[in-house]
This record gives sequence, C-alpha cells and structure tokens, in this order.
Amino acid sequence: MSLREDAKRIIAEAIGAVQPRQAVGAALVGRQYQGRVIMIALGKAAYPMAAAAADTLSDKLTAGLVITKPGHTGPTPIPRTEVIFGGHPVPDAGSVKGAVRALELVHGLTPRDTVVLLISGGGSALFELPVIPLEELRKISESLLRSGASIGEMNTVRKRLSKVKAGRFAMACAPARVLAVVLSDVIGDRLDVIASGPAAADPTTAAQALAIVEQYNLHLSPEALSALSEETPKHIDHVETHITGSVAALCRAAEQAARELGYSTLTLTYSLDCEAREAGSFLGAIARHYHALGGRRAILCGGETVVRVTGTGLGGRNQELALSAARYLDGLEGALLVALGSDGTDGPTDAAGGMVDARTARRLRERGISLHDALENNDSYHALAAVDDLIFTGPTGTNVNDLYMLLLDPPGQGA
Amino acid sequence: MSLREDAKRIIAEAIGAVQPRQAVGAALVGRQYQGRVIMIALGKAAYPMAAAAADTLSDKLTAGLVITKPGHTGPTPIPRTEVIFGGHPVPDAGSVKGAVRALELVHGLTPRDTVVLLISGGGSALFELPVIPLEELRKISESLLRSGASIGEMNTVRKRLSKVKAGRFAMACAPARVLAVVLSDVIGDRLDVIASGPAAADPTTAAQALAIVEQYNLHLSPEALSALSEETPKHIDHVETHITGSVAALCRAAEQAARELGYSTLTLTYSLDCEAREAGSFLGAIARHYHALGGRRAILCGGETVVRVTGTGLGGRNQELALSAARYLDGLEGALLVALGSDGTDGPTDAAGGMVDARTARRLRERGISLHDALENNDSYHALAAVDDLIFTGPTGTNVNDLYMLLLDPPGQGA
Repeated sequence: MSLREDAKRIIAEAIGAVQPRQAVGAALVGRQYQGRVIMIALGKAAYPMAAAAADTLSDKLTAGLVITKPGHTGPTPIPRTEVIFGGHPVPDAGSVKGAVRALELVHGLTPRDTVVLLISGGGSALFELPVIPLEELRKISESLLRSGASIGEMNTVRKRLSKVKAGRFAMACAPARVLAVVLSDVIGDRLDVIASGPAAADPTTAAQALAIVEQYNLHLSPEALSALSEETPKHIDHVETHITGSVAALCRAAEQAARELGYSTLTLTYSLDCEAREAGSFLGAIARHYHALGGRRAILCGGETVVRVTGTGLGGRNQELALSAARYLDGLEGALLVALGSDGTDGPTDAAGGMVDARTARRLRERGISLHDALENNDSYHALAAVDDLIFTGPTGTNVNDLYMLLLDPPGQGA
Repeated sequence: MSLREDAKRIIAEAIGAVQPRQAVGAALVGRQYQGRVIMIALGKAAYPMAAAAADTLSDKLTAGLVITKPGHTGPTPIPRTEVIFGGHPVPDAGSVKGAVRALELVHGLTPRDTVVLLISGGGSALFELPVIPLEELRKISESLLRSGASIGEMNTVRKRLSKVKAGRFAMACAPARVLAVVLSDVIGDRLDVIASGPAAADPTTAAQALAIVEQYNLHLSPEALSALSEETPKHIDHVETHITGSVAALCRAAEQAARELGYSTLTLTYSLDCEAREAGSFLGAIARHYHALGGRRAILCGGETVVRVTGTGLGGRNQELALSAARYLDGLEGALLVALGSDGTDGPTDAAGGMVDARTARRLRERGISLHDALENNDSYHALAAVDDLIFTGPTGTNVNDLYMLLLDPPGQGA
C-alpha cells in the first residue's frame, strides 16, 4: 500500500476510536430519573452525542435541544429534540437563539429534575448569550483570533461577556441536578475551558481577563470592561461531569493503527499549541532527520496549533501546518505528513486538513503556485486544493482536537 | 547531581568534541608546500583555527591574517599573522579592511603558492568588500534579518553584493591553489552557504536573488539590483576543501555525554530552523509529554532558529527559545531546557544561550517580570539575566550551530 493509503486508513481508525456515542450511553445508563429530563447538547459533536443520549434515556427524555454547526447533524431526527444552528468560529444570531431557548428549557426546574448537558468543542461560539451587543462580542472574538492569543486566553475573556459560560448556565439550571458529559477538545481536558465551561466553576479571575485585554491591546467598551470585572461562579456542587474522548485517545488509536501497518511509532506530545506554520517547520526538520535514518516510521503529535494571520487567503491551522511542512518534504521520497482536525472541519473551510508528501512542492511549482506566497497569504486551502492534497472527511461526529502525523518509508530501506 | 550540573557537564563535553584544532592540523599536515603559503582565517573560530594551522605549517607560513569578532582571539600571538576585527552580525569598516588586506595578501601569487583558507561561521559579516556603499549593504542585511528570511536566503542576496563571496575570493587567489578548511555552522554543511562561500562555486542564480528581494519586499538601489543580476562563478577547480565539525557531531557528543550520566536519549533533528519562540513552544509541549511518562531522559535537537523581531529588547535566538520554553516548564519539577549557541555568543549579547527549568517562570513572577512581555519585546536577555538563567561560556573556539536539549528526571521516578 502507498503511504497515502496507509494514512487514510490510520485516520479512519483514529477518528472511529474517539466517537462519543458509547461514552455518552455509559454515563447515562442505570441512573434514576425521577422528574423531568431536559437534554441540552452543544458543540460540533452535539448531534451524535444527543442521539446517543436520547437512545439511552428513551421515554425518560422530556425535551431536548441540539445547538450545533450547519452540516453537523444526522439524517434521523432525535425524538422530542429541536435543532438550532449557531455560528462558528464566531457566534451569530443562531448562537444567541440557542442559548435563549436552552435557558427557557431549564427555567423553573426542581431538585427532582435532571439536565443532561452534552458538551463538545465549538460550544464557545455556537452557544452564546452575550451581556454586550453581539456585534461587539464578535469584533472582540475576531481581534482575539487575529492577535495570536491562545484558545485559553480567548475564552478567559469571552466567557465573562456571556450569561451562559463560566458556570453560569449550570447556575441557571439549579436547583435541578446537572449531568454533564464532555467530549474534550482542549489540551489537558480542563472543564472550565472546554466550550468555555458552561457548567464548570471558573478558576480564572477578573484580573486575568483584564490582563489579557492589555497584553493583546484590545479596545473594549466601558460595558465590556465592566462585565470583565464581574466575578464568575467559583463553587458549583449540583453538577456531575464525565469527560470522554481526548486527543490522547486519538493519538493512541492512530499509533495502534500505524503499528498494525508495520510502522514503528514515536509520539512526541498531545499538547502542541505553537503556530501552525512553525509546527510544520519543526515537523519537517524531524522528517528529514528520521528519513535519513531510514526505516518505516510513524511520528505523531496531538494538539491544536494557532494561525498567525498575515494575509487574506483561505485556510485552516491544519492546512497551513501541512503546507509549511511541504517545504521540508520537497523531494523526500517516502515521506508524508498529515495534519487533521478530528471534527472534520479545519478553519472556515470544508476540508479537515492537509496531506502532503515529497511531491507536493513540485506539483505546486508545476502549476505555477508559489508555496511561499500561499503561506504568507494564509491561503493554504487554495494551494492544497490545486494539488489535491486536502483531506475531506465531512463532519466526523466527534471533536477531540488535531492529529499531526509523519509517515516515513524511504525507498531502498524496505524489505 | 542536579539537572543543571548535568546540563553544564553535557555542554562542556559537546563543545569540546567540536573544537577545530585537530581537524585543521590533519587537513594541512604531510603536504608539499613549494612556494609562498598565505593563511587567511575568517569567522568566529578564525583565531583557534589559525593557531592550529600555524602550528602545523610552522616556518612554511609566509604570512597570515585572522579576521574575527572582538573577544574571539587567544592570549598568544600567532607568528607572522595579523588580526583584524570585523563587524557581526552586520559588516562594518573592519570587515572591509579585512577583505581588502586579504586581497592584498593573495595578490600576484603563482601556481606554486598556496592559500590556506580557514572558514568558520560569522564569516559572511566579518569578511566583506561590498560592490555598493557599506551603509547600503548594512541596511539590506538588517532588513533581511528583520524580515524573517532564512540564513540561506540572506546569503543568496548578500553574496552577490560582494567582491569576496560566492567563490569570488577563490578566483582572486588564482592561479595559486587554495586549501580550504571549513568549520560548518550551516545546516546540511553546504559550502556555498557557510560564510557565504568565499571559495565555493555558487549554485544560486541571479534570478533566485531577485525573487528573494521581491518576496521580502526589499527596496534596493539600481546599483544593488544590477549587482544582484550579475552571475557568480559556477566552476572552481583550484580549490580543495575539507569540512570539519558539524551540528550533528555536536549533538552526538551531547547525546553520548547524557547517556554516560544515565539519561536515555532521543535526537529529533539536526536541522531545526523555525522561529525560536515557536521552537520553544514545541519543545515545551514535548517536555510535558515525556515528563508525564517519567524516566530520566535527554531529548536533543540541533539547528539554527530565527527570531521574528517584534520588539526592541535585547536577546538572541537561543535565549528567546529558552524563555519561550520556560512557559511550558513552569512547575514541571525535574525538567530543564538548554538552548546554546556553540560559538558562545548568542545574538548581540555576551551570553551563549539560556538554561530554564520548572522554577524559571515562578522566579520571573517573583521579580515582577512579565515573561509574556519579555518575549513580545524580544527581551529574553534581561529576563533570563534577572533569574540567573543565562549561559555564559565566552567564545568557545568553535562554531557549529546551536544545541537544544531537554533534560527530564521527574521526582518519584528515580531510584
């Protein structure tokens, strides 16, 4: 089999191993549900998580709400469950509609009632009721994205501008108990960070939020600054949380699949969070080293890189990482790099990531496309599309961060 | 022993293993020297290389010239050899004086004469006779440094603006034979790139140089553009070259020393060339992964990162890499990172690099120093100085690129 075929098989195995269905069922089965059961699912994996929960809850489910990204639903309706589409990566009117409806559904519950809260990545943007005008919040989000702030820093600021984040949604559910199942897409699985922690006590402080505003030189209205100064819930005791899925599980599944295909494996980290382009350089330099050593090897990392926006092109962090690495793989026969968003959507594109090899740079040259210019313009999507090096999976039903994988099998080294 | 003591020992062993003295002697010994023997040594390791060559040549040496950086000389004069100090990292009047004097010394030689040319890193700036005003060349160099261009790209442009680079100095030595000994500080040991290849045929073309000017949006005078368009020597057959030292040898020596101290070792690459700060992030993420796995480990890379200049502070690529990594090592007891320039001078500072550990970030906080701000301002020198985390070696007598090393020995894992 070719490296590309191997890579596709490893990707399929890895994505398959982090589907939330089973974990959601396990968290909900065998429990007593005495009063009403309200299901709120939010994030890019909301639909498959809600479908699994509805299966398990069966006729115990009073009412459900899925708040997700368009295209991330399934063909079969979920009983007694509405679907509302929110905005991603920046919240829109749909995000607000979803949050308002969720607050309605959990309003007036009693201690006998249960809120089943299914949280996955993307929830920060898809589920939002801001304390300031949405347009202002969107501008703040965009400037945070462009500033190069980490996802953690972005959320420290954004969640304080919201009525549903940083534990505030859980407070709105009280006195009902909340059963939260969280599909982690955040490095280190921090509950307060995943989807901005709608049901998690918030360890960040107003002072930290204000410091981030200063660091990245953000210009905020007096209303926004005043909201940032308000403290968030620090102790929440009516919530029980189950974490499932993680980028570590994704990497381990990929490692296992690679070993079954005869690759020796090396995993470097589950928490890569540097700039996408530079991560591509680093992985490219690693590729050159191990390529020279020979042997059939898979080198893996998990994490979530960030893009430094310098241009106006179209792309995503995984596509940019892959295009950057293509410079180093140029002419390196028997070398391939995959950068993949496990949710199947990388940035504002329909691709899940990029898969580049020894011939990518040459094929770009043959088509008269400057790899350098494409990187400078953050236009990885069009460059990779031109040489058929995008990965398309469609929405995968899960969302546990990104996988970066080098496959090496230099010629003249095999059996 | 502590991690810091181990690191210092490994550094000393690694630097010791790549001293040029022995290699210079071996390249020159046992040869016939019939006519005049002119020795020209240039670069940060010029002095120790020239001292070794003079020892070997003994009374065969007609005249010598060392062109190096202030502080990079030894206590003992070298017989019949002048010393001229050039500018680094940008050429100055001393660089020009050195090149003019070198051209004088090799002028009018015959086929019976020999030029012993000792080349080490830094030679690009230290040895220069520009075809345009020096001030203009300096501005071009500075804008290239700031643009984020690779050292290869910088030199493709600069060497065409010079009368002594890209093989042109060797042409000036003809018809004498040239014995070149090159101490490599360039990834991949490309002779045309090390010190801008004064005695190497130039594979780069005028078209490539002009493309780089365009990529980085440099503004050049008509004279400079015309010089860029002139072709460089493509075939040189009176030069015999010996390469010695390399970042691979540096890494292997460090690996060996680490193993002797009980570390299991993993070397990822010899050719890291991404941004210093992002390399620090990537290595920090790797540190977290292996720290969690436990065990006494050394993880090594060689290469030469670049700094993206966004501020006005003082630092060097190794100090910036180390300071960046300190964010990830924060609180990670039993983790240490070294980033070291093998020549002993990192950027425009008197430090060789940085050594950070689990307590670096905390010690910065205790002193009221913002690690984030120091990075944004490229002020790694002052931050690391405040917590005593700079490495000072003084000029090391060699120059074979940088060493990046993680040492991990998490508590509760040892014997």
